[in-house]
Amino acid sequence: MHEYHLNISCPDKPGIIATCTSFLSNLDVNIVDLKQHSSHDINTFFLRAHFESAKTINKAEFSSEFTSVASEFEMKWDLHSLDRLHRVGVMVSKTSHCLYELLLKNQDGELKCEIPCIVSNHKDLEPVAKHFNIPFYHVPSTISKAEQEVEFEKIAQRHLLDTWVMARYMQILREEFTSKWPGQIINIHHGFLPAFKGAKPYHQAWNKGVKIIGATAHYATQDLDQGPIISQDVISVEDEASIAEFVEMGKDIERRVLLKAIKLHIEHKIFIREGRTFLIG
Amino acid sequence: MHEYHLNISCPDKPGIIATCTSFLSNLDVNIVDLKQHSSHDINTFFLRAHFESAKTINKAEFSSEFTSVASEFEMKWDLHSLDRLHRVGVMVSKTSHCLYELLLKNQDGELKCEIPCIVSNHKDLEPVAKHFNIPFYHVPSTISKAEQEVEFEKIAQRHLLDTWVMARYMQILREEFTSKWPGQIINIHHGFLPAFKGAKPYHQAWNKGVKIIGATAHYATQDLDQGPIISQDVISVEDEASIAEFVEMGKDIERRVLLKAIKLHIEHKIFIREGRTFLIG
Amino acid sequence: MHEYHLNISCPDKPGIIATCTSFLSNLDVNIVDLKQHSSHDINTFFLRAHFESAKTINKAEFSSEFTSVASEFEMKWDLHSLDRLHRVGVMVSKTSHCLYELLLKNQDGELKCEIPCIVSNHKDLEPVAKHFNIPFYHVPSTISKAEQEVEFEKIAQRHLLDTWVMARYMQILREEFTSKWPGQIINIHHGFLPAFKGAKPYHQAWNKGVKIIGATAHYATQDLDQGPIISQDVISVEDEASIAEFVEMGKDIERRVLLKAIKLHIEHKIFIREGRTFLIG
Amino acid sequence: MHEYHLNISCPDKPGIIATCTSFLSNLDVNIVDLKQHSSHDINTFFLRAHFESAKTINKAEFSSEFTSVASEFEMKWDLHSLDRLHRVGVMVSKTSHCLYELLLKNQDGELKCEIPCIVSNHKDLEPVAKHFNIPFYHVPSTISKAEQEVEFEKIAQRHLLDTWVMARYMQILREEFTSKWPGQIINIHHGFLPAFKGAKPYHQAWNKGVKIIGATAHYATQDLDQGPIISQDVISVEDEASIAEFVEMGKDIERRVLLKAIKLHIEHKIFIREGRTFLIG
Repeated sequence: MHEYHLNISCPDKPGIIATCTSFLSNLDVNIVDLKQHSSHDINTFFLRAHFESAKTINKAEFSSEFTSVASEFEMKWDLHSLDRLHRVGVMVSKTSHCLYELLLKNQDGELKCEIPCIVSNHKDLEPVAKHFNIPFYHVPSTISKAEQEVEFEKIAQRHLLDTWVMARYMQILREEFTSKWPGQIINIHHGFLPAFKGAKPYHQAWNKGVKIIGATAHYATQDLDQGPIISQDVISVEDEASIAEFVEMGKDIERRVLLKAIKLHIEHKIFIREGRTFLIG
Repeated sequence: MHEYHLNISCPDKPGIIATCTSFLSNLDVNIVDLKQHSSHDINTFFLRAHFESAKTINKAEFSSEFTSVASEFEMKWDLHSLDRLHRVGVMVSKTSHCLYELLLKNQDGELKCEIPCIVSNHKDLEPVAKHFNIPFYHVPSTISKAEQEVEFEKIAQRHLLDTWVMARYMQILREEFTSKWPGQIINIHHGFLPAFKGAKPYHQAWNKGVKIIGATAHYATQDLDQGPIISQDVISVEDEASIAEFVEMGKDIERRVLLKAIKLHIEHKIFIREGRTFLIG
Repeated sequence: MHEYHLNISCPDKPGIIATCTSFLSNLDVNIVDLKQHSSHDINTFFLRAHFESAKTINKAEFSSEFTSVASEFEMKWDLHSLDRLHRVGVMVSKTSHCLYELLLKNQDGELKCEIPCIVSNHKDLEPVAKHFNIPFYHVPSTISKAEQEVEFEKIAQRHLLDTWVMARYMQILREEFTSKWPGQIINIHHGFLPAFKGAKPYHQAWNKGVKIIGATAHYATQDLDQGPIISQDVISVEDEASIAEFVEMGKDIERRVLLKAIKLHIEHKIFIREGRTFLIG
Repeated sequence: MHEYHLNISCPDKPGIIATCTSFLSNLDVNIVDLKQHSSHDINTFFLRAHFESAKTINKAEFSSEFTSVASEFEMKWDLHSLDRLHRVGVMVSKTSHCLYELLLKNQDGELKCEIPCIVSNHKDLEPVAKHFNIPFYHVPSTISKAEQEVEFEKIAQRHLLDTWVMARYMQILREEFTSKWPGQIINIHHGFLPAFKGAKPYHQAWNKGVKIIGATAHYATQDLDQGPIISQDVISVEDEASIAEFVEMGKDIERRVLLKAIKLHIEHKIFIREGRTFLIG
C-alpha cells in the first residue's frame, strides 16, 4: 500500500468536498482520514486527506487530471507521497537538549523522519552526532554568513533535505537563505511569542514578573522571531524561581514544542495563509 | 438556510466518504465542516458532517433515499436538524455552582440550547430558577423513586426534552429510568473517574495524597459512575491544601467539565461505541 | 482567636527570620503558616507569617515595639488584621461574566471579602446587583473623568473600601486616581500580557495565529496594561476556532484569573518590588 | 559555606517555629529558605528549613543539643548535609526514555545528584551507560529474586547508594527488599494512580475512553502500585488517538514525573505521614 497526503485550500464555496472525494474515489484510493474546515473569518476552505492506494500515484499525472478541478475552485494544493521519509537537517550550536530530543524520539520511531546530517557553528555536539551515527558538519562562524549558507546549500543537496530545523542554532539566517526555503525552516524561540522577541527572553520574562513562561516554534523568515507560529506551549512558574530556574524549566518546553512542530510539519498538517498557520487535522 | 448534522459510523472499508459526500452533493447542500476518522483499534469508520441546505430536509425522505447506502456499509447513522434548539432539562439538589454555570452560559448565548425547566428534590434553588425565569419543579425525595421518575417523564413530555442534565443532582436514578434515556442523561461526577467512584471522592483523593484532582462528565447508566465518559478535566493541587479546599477547587472543574460535555452532546460530536465515547469533530 | 498577616521584605542577611519569630513568640501568638524566601536575583528577603493571638493586637503598639527590629534590617513591613473582612468595590461596564463570578464565589464563602458596592458607567448590570442585594451606583461616562473619579472617592469613603476591582470596566482611570490607590486597584486584561496590550487582544491573537490565549490580572497604574502582574492563565486554542470563539473561551480565563488575583491580594500574598510582584505563601 | 536541610514534623502546637529558628540562630547559621505549614486535617506541623553555615555541623552534636527541643514537641526530624551529593542507583529493563532523561538532566547539572551505577535485568541499555561513562551491572531474571536482591545490596554498598530509582524496571521487588529501603525506592507507574493499577494501564485507559492520561511516581512498598505518591502529571488525549499513541504520549509524562519526583526527594521536600506524602517547600 502507498500512502499520500493531499492538502487543499481555496475560497470557500459549495461542492468542493464532494468534488474532491469523488475525484479520489475514481482513482480507486481509500481515504483513511479526512479533515475539512472552513474559516469564516477569512472565507477559506481547508482540506487535508490521508489516503492509501494499491498502485503508485505519479504526481505529474495526478496534477494533469486534477488541474481542471483545482482551477475551477482556485485551489492551492499539494500532494505528498509517504513512500519516502521526510529528510530533516538539524542546525545546532552548543546546547544539546533539543538535539538529543530529536535524535532519541527518532530512534524510538516516534518522529518518523530521516535525520541525515547535523550542522553546527561549534564542535561541542560532535560526540552526540557520533553516538547516533549521524554525519556532523562544522561550519564555523569565522567564515562569512554568505559562505556558511553556501555550505548549507551543498549539505542540503548532498543529503536531499526537505526541511531545516534550527534546534537552538544561535545564528541569524540571512533573507537570501530563508527566502530559498519558504515554510521549510523551523526555528525554536525560547519565549512565548509575540512577547519577548529577541535576546534573553527568560530574563525579560522574569523582570516583567510573568506567571507563565513558554516557547514557540515557528517558520524562519527574514523578520526575526516573526515568522508564522507552528506550535507553542507554556509552563506555570512560581515567583520564587530564579532566572536560572526559568532557563532550566524552559528547556523542557523548548524541546517539546520543537518536536511537536516537526511532527505536524512532516504530517503536512500546517497550512500557511494570511501570514499565520492553520493546523488542520 | 437550514443546518444539519449527519453522524455515521460503520465497519471501515474503502469508498464510504466519497459515497456519502456525493449523496449529499446530489441533495444540493453545502458541507460546512466534515471530520472523518477511522479507528484501527476497533476497525470503525466515523464521520460527522455539518451541512447547510436552502430548503428544509425531511428526515423520512432523507432516510428512504439514504437507506441503500446505509445498509450497503452497515451504517449506524442519524440526521439532526438545527432548526429547533436542543431542549435540556436540568436536575439539581442544593448546590448551585453547576446550575448557575449552565444558566449564565446559556443566557450569554454560549451554550446554544433551551433550558425549559429545572427539577429538584429540594426547594433551595427555586430563587435561582426564578431569577432566570425558568419553571421550577419540586419533586421531593419523600415520594418513592418510581413516583419521582413518573414526574420526570411528565415534565419531559410537557417540555419536549431531548436530554436530561444532572447538575449535581444527588440522587441515583433507577435503571427503569436511565434505560429509557440511553445516551440522553448527562451526569457530573466530582472525581477523576475511574478512580474515586462513589461518595466523597475529594476525601478519598486527599487521603490518597494525589497531586491532581479532577471531575468527569459521563452518560448515566445503571452502573453507578461507570457510564461512557464524555469529558474530563483536572487541576493540580498542593499538598498544603485541605480537604475543604479540594472541594472548593473541584467546583470549578465540575462546572467546566459539565458545560463542555453538554456542548459536545448538543453539537452531536459524541459517538458511543464499545462502551466508551469517541469525540469526532 | 484573632488572626493576623505579617508581611516583611528587606535586604537579605542572616538572622532576620529568627529575630522575627522570636519577636512574635514573645507576643504570645501562634504562627499558623510561615513562608520565607530570599530572591538571590535581587538580594531580597521576603516573609509572610499568618498567626493567631488570643488577645487583640493593637497595630500602633505593635509598631512601636517592632520599629527597632524593622529599622535594624531596613524592613518594609505591614500587619493586617483579619478581624475585619477586606472591602472590595467592583467597577463594571456591560459585560457580566466577571461580576457574576465574584458575586457567586463570595456568596459561596470562597472569596472571603465584603463587596459593599458596584459601580458602573452603564445601567445594564443593575439587575445583577439587585439579585445579590448590593448597592449599585451609576456613574455615567457623560460626565468628565475628573467628575467620575470624585464620585468613586465618595463611594469608596461611604463604603470604607480597601480595594477596587475593575471587573471588565472598559474605561481608563487617570493617573490622578490610580496614584491615590497604589497596589489597590486590580484590573483584568483579556490578553496574555505583555503581548497584546491595548484594544481587541483576541483579534490581535487570532491574526498572529497564536496557539494559546490568556488573560492577565494586574495592578492598575498610569501606564496602560503595564502594571505589576498578579496572576495569569492560558488556554490552548485550535486553529479552527474563530475570533468569536476566542472571545468566548477567553471569558472563562478572565474570570478565573481575576478571582485568583483578588484572593491572593486579600490574603496579602503579593509583594510589589522592582516593578513586579512576588507571590510568597 | 556548608548547606543543610532540616526537616521537622510533629503534632501542631504554639511556639514550635520560634523555638526552632532560635535554636538555629544560636548555631550561627543563616536560614536561606523556610517553609512551614500546619495541616488541620491531621493536626500536624511541618517545617523544612534550608540553611547555610560557615563551619561544618556535626550531626551527632546537633542531635545531642536538639534532642530536648525535639522530645518536648514529639518531633520526627532529620538533618541532611548537602556537602555530599545524593547517590542514586538506577534500575532499568529495556526501555530507555526514563534512563536517558535522568542521565541527560544530570549531565546538564539540573538533577544535582550522583548516578554511580545502572542495574538491569537485560543488556539492552548497556551502550547508554557506556555513552555516559557509568558502570552497568547486568543482574538477569534467570537467577531468583532473592539472589538478584542480594546483588542489589552489594551494588548499593559498593556505590554508597542513598536511593534506588526504578526507571521503568519491569520487575516486582519483594517485601524483603523494599522494607530495607523505606522511602528510598522511587518507582514510576505509567498510569494515573490510583486508577489503572497493574499491567497495561494505557490499554485499560483507552478501553475506558478516558480523556486524560497520566503517570505517577511513588515510593515502592510491598503493595504493588500503592505506595505513597510523590508526583503526578497528565496529558489530554484525543479520542482519535490509538492505544499505540497513548503509549507514545505517555512516555513524555513518565520521564517528566519521574524526574520531578527525584528532584523533590533529593531536596528533602517530601514528608511521608498517614500513608501519603506531603510536599513542603
